[in-house]
Amino acid sequence: MNYITIIGFVAAIFTTSAFLPQAIKIIRTKKTSDISLLMYSVMAIGSFLWFLYGVFLKAPPIIVANSIGLILVCTILVLKIKYK
Amino acid sequence: MNYITIIGFVAAIFTTSAFLPQAIKIIRTKKTSDISLLMYSVMAIGSFLWFLYGVFLKAPPIIVANSIGLILVCTILVLKIKYK
Repeated sequence: MNYITIIGFVAAIFTTSAFLPQAIKIIRTKKTSDISLLMYSVMAIGSFLWFLYGVFLKAPPIIVANSIGLILVCTILVLKIKYK
Repeated sequence: MNYITIIGFVAAIFTTSAFLPQAIKIIRTKKTSDISLLMYSVMAIGSFLWFLYGVFLKAPPIIVANSIGLILVCTILVLKIKYK
């Protein structure tokens, strides 16, 4: 694995796991009024499309990163609707 | 351009532009207490790494999507620190 691929993998880990502290914060505080419903709706559709893209290309890193990302984004979206 | 590439482009447009309504919401309300500082810090590093990955691969779609994404994420990050 060359250094470019390593940068790509680290980038994927960062942009996917970034949603985790936001989800934890909402679970703890039960507050979501400053969070944009539209952002997480658009992000959920986009993550699902990336997942599909990975499936069509048979690219496991894209499939795995976007499966985890989609779960985290949908969790935030559900909490946003729940604590509206 | 085949349908798989189109799905990838639409996915990139969605996951990049998703940050725009969040930035607009913060500019309007000046409220960021429910937003995770750690999320946007990690997302900014991740977007920068994706940008570097695109530069090394000479891949314009990755460069363009992550330049716009990085600007939006950094805008939210600066507003989060400003309105803390």
